[in-house]
Amino acid sequence: MLSQKPLAIALSAVILTFSTGVQANDLKPEEMIKFRKAAYNFMAWNMGKIKANLEGNFNQDAVANAAGAIAAVANSGMGALYAPGTDKNIGNEKTRLKSEFFKEPDKVREIAVNFNKQANELVKVAASGDAGAVRTQFAKLGDACKACHDPYRAK
Amino acid sequence: MLSQKPLAIALSAVILTFSTGVQANDLKPEEMIKFRKAAYNFMAWNMGKIKANLEGNFNQDAVANAAGAIAAVANSGMGALYAPGTDKNIGNEKTRLKSEFFKEPDKVREIAVNFNKQANELVKVAASGDAGAVRTQFAKLGDACKACHDPYRAK
Repeated sequence: MLSQKPLAIALSAVILTFSTGVQANDLKPEEMIKFRKAAYNFMAWNMGKIKANLEGNFNQDAVANAAGAIAAVANSGMGALYAPGTDKNIGNEKTRLKSEFFKEPDKVREIAVNFNKQANELVKVAASGDAGAVRTQFAKLGDACKACHDPYRAK
Repeated sequence: MLSQKPLAIALSAVILTFSTGVQANDLKPEEMIKFRKAAYNFMAWNMGKIKANLEGNFNQDAVANAAGAIAAVANSGMGALYAPGTDKNIGNEKTRLKSEFFKEPDKVREIAVNFNKQANELVKVAASGDAGAVRTQFAKLGDACKACHDPYRAK
């Protein structure tokens, strides 16, 4: 069984992975839940724009803009919003984060690193203007999202 | 009294100003409220990071990262999230948007253009690494936010 210390060190590594270059900023646990949900919803809106472009008229500028917004979220240091204890509703802030998230730091880190990679790759692909390549990379990004949702987000 | 048509045209101009290059994407009014609140909350988190850096140890990378996230929101075409009728709570989505927002399109457009300008300027200033200049530009951005909150957001 894992002792607390290696877990804390591993979680710090996850947070560093998520938050490179971003200074800690004293947030309450309920603010962490609020801000991380905001980040994901802002991202969801931009994912929806790309989906609409792939299903309708493909506008390269629109897709590149949305890809940039998604990458801005991915690169924003969201690990800082996952302190232990934030797997429970706090006040009015509800979360679907499962406790397993804090028990599998190596897996979480791997998922986080891949998510960042796929989001940043989408920016490059969107700049190329190749709709087919965007479709492929967008699917990879969707898989990267799902890789976290399936094990760590309650239905 | 304004007829509906010029108002609609003026509002389209506002939406175009906000949403350059972003293709419309069929959203329900309650989704517009949800996504715009998410965008502002994601931005608020990043504003908080810059404030913390100005009040504590100034980390240029952290400030540049947060400024980029704010600009990504500012440039994301948020005008598309302000359809008439979204000045009222819809279902579980609450909004503080005042109806005056839809009655003063020229003023709204001017505020939106200035907000974009100040957010993009902050990216440039943050890249310079000059903490004093960031402080000045951050205050200008705060003023640009306030210019919309004061007349159009309920207390």
